[in-house]
Amino acid sequence: MKIRYNLLKTEKNTQARFGTIQTNHGTYETPMFMPVGTRATVKSLSKEELKDEHAGIILSNTYHLWLRPGPDVIKNCGGLHKFMSWDQPILTDSGGFQVFSLAKNKRKDITEEGVHFKSHIDGQNLFLTPEKSIEIQNKLDSDIAMSFDECPPYPVTYEYMKKSVERTLRWAKRGKKVHNNPNQALFGIVQGGEFTDLREYSCKETVKLDFDGYSIGGTSVGEDKPTMYKMVEDGIRYLPKDKVRYLMGVGDPIDIIEGVIRGVDIFDCVLPTRIARHGQAFTRGGKINLNNAKYKEDLNPIDNSCDCYTCKNYSKAYIRHLITTGETLGGRLLSIHNIRFLIKLTEELREAIKNDNILEYRKEFLTKYEGKQKK
Amino acid sequence: MKIRYNLLKTEKNTQARFGTIQTNHGTYETPMFMPVGTRATVKSLSKEELKDEHAGIILSNTYHLWLRPGPDVIKNCGGLHKFMSWDQPILTDSGGFQVFSLAKNKRKDITEEGVHFKSHIDGQNLFLTPEKSIEIQNKLDSDIAMSFDECPPYPVTYEYMKKSVERTLRWAKRGKKVHNNPNQALFGIVQGGEFTDLREYSCKETVKLDFDGYSIGGTSVGEDKPTMYKMVEDGIRYLPKDKVRYLMGVGDPIDIIEGVIRGVDIFDCVLPTRIARHGQAFTRGGKINLNNAKYKEDLNPIDNSCDCYTCKNYSKAYIRHLITTGETLGGRLLSIHNIRFLIKLTEELREAIKNDNILEYRKEFLTKYEGKQKK
Repeated sequence: MKIRYNLLKTEKNTQARFGTIQTNHGTYETPMFMPVGTRATVKSLSKEELKDEHAGIILSNTYHLWLRPGPDVIKNCGGLHKFMSWDQPILTDSGGFQVFSLAKNKRKDITEEGVHFKSHIDGQNLFLTPEKSIEIQNKLDSDIAMSFDECPPYPVTYEYMKKSVERTLRWAKRGKKVHNNPNQALFGIVQGGEFTDLREYSCKETVKLDFDGYSIGGTSVGEDKPTMYKMVEDGIRYLPKDKVRYLMGVGDPIDIIEGVIRGVDIFDCVLPTRIARHGQAFTRGGKINLNNAKYKEDLNPIDNSCDCYTCKNYSKAYIRHLITTGETLGGRLLSIHNIRFLIKLTEELREAIKNDNILEYRKEFLTKYEGKQKK
Repeated sequence: MKIRYNLLKTEKNTQARFGTIQTNHGTYETPMFMPVGTRATVKSLSKEELKDEHAGIILSNTYHLWLRPGPDVIKNCGGLHKFMSWDQPILTDSGGFQVFSLAKNKRKDITEEGVHFKSHIDGQNLFLTPEKSIEIQNKLDSDIAMSFDECPPYPVTYEYMKKSVERTLRWAKRGKKVHNNPNQALFGIVQGGEFTDLREYSCKETVKLDFDGYSIGGTSVGEDKPTMYKMVEDGIRYLPKDKVRYLMGVGDPIDIIEGVIRGVDIFDCVLPTRIARHGQAFTRGGKINLNNAKYKEDLNPIDNSCDCYTCKNYSKAYIRHLITTGETLGGRLLSIHNIRFLIKLTEELREAIKNDNILEYRKEFLTKYEGKQKK
């Protein structure tokens, strides 16, 4: 089996959907937030901690694993699941996002054949193609592989975006052709920037290629929020209802709510673990920074309403001490909390879909979350 | 109650003793290895991980906690146990070891009153005295406080060491006088370097002051192994049998065995967590370095005979990947393994004491451990 998406309910007033994804590593409910394990490890966390947070699928990065330890090492170790000792599903990205940001001379380095770039580790000249990306992902043996797409910067002209969408379609076809892992699903990626007709075109043409799921790409690249939400709407409108929809690289709590309302099923983002390492935590009253001296003797947990390990066991005073002294336990405790915060948010969104009250849920969430943010 | 040591059995052929320490935070068997939590955290580990490794007492550092977050913050947070959410015993060192290494001009900075030095964080001029050390430890509210002693370098002349021993005795008296925490035990420290008669003198005079336990100081300062083991023998010979004996800063597996054979009850050392962060692991066949390319596709655990979380769940190939890519989970997994290795060693030494076969145990351990080391 590759994967199967089961749509169980659409919310009455919006496009929000409750469903399940069946995989070879278990069945999980959507909407879902996927923690990011860039180098086959969700930074500083154990698999038990991820499971305690009710994580479902996790994401890992093809570019990073290609460089170290290399796809053959992982293949020889029995695939990514066995290598990292994780028995739940894994989605791998295509490596595209990383190599596009590493390509120095965009005009020269990005060719029809693929992308030339230098390794961030040793400067070595490397070349990634749609075929190579799929070949690596086949070896990694993730549950879900992503097509290799062009990730244009923002903004670009309509003409550039049109050509880019065409190229992404050609790359999607090339990748699909060489994809050769009967246990691995392959997702297509909808591009088109902020141009409604290009999103429509990209969407319809990608769907014609018949992928196992679809991703909305090209958001969170510098556009404002209304533009981003419109990109999501335009990217989803022509997707089939019986396939899963994945909004890549989005993990801000408000963006997750807005994405779910527009029909997104899965999200991923490094945000919860990255801000954790800098001492920041999500709370129902907005983001807080544990470096702040006002928490020095604060014996309360980060968030009284949170059910995570960190909030059940440690005070803000202690976490602040760990963060300000550079102790890795601090980032670990905040990562646990932040990931749980986003996963709990998706659990509540699922309930709101079942109860047909997601718009009230959004209003209530935003009142608390943005109220504090603006202080 | 402060603490109570119960001697339950002395091994037939050596000075090795099996016993228990009763504390306000539970009763634990000795010989015991104490993991080091310098800044109120055993680097990268959670309390559950420490308990899974069967840790008993942990050690925390007065100097580091004095600077950050400060003893008053910890006092206002309800003491060190509540601050760090640890319900088992804590021993705090005196801060002496750190400030002696920070004192630049030994002749000028080390005075009868105390030690002048500069903070390692911001270069601030600081002054630590026997009274101040005890006052800080009283506020930290650890189960066991250590006397502030002079830690002379190695080697020094007999005359210097004699004067130093006298000073350590005066400092021990001054500390004991101001010690004011009915729930906290206070340990004296035996010094005297490699001079048998000075160890005897230090031992007898320290015991006269009637501490709750005794520590052997001034080892692991550059002397060779035979000298170190003689220091331990000389430091213990005149200690009372009904008080616990603590060999400070010693954590090499062979040194633990030799210390136990000479009558030591507790040990501490940063070694297992420090070498973990550099990719090294203890095994029954000697220390190994996970950075080594030969482990790239090695699906075996670090040590087949080990019962730790790391060995039950992860391969050398995966840990090598984490270590070589700088992922903190790597240091965490190796810390779990290395601490468990030393704790399991003390568990086996306890059994050997009960079975009166500790010399055979040593022989067997060394054959495997040193055999591999010499390869």
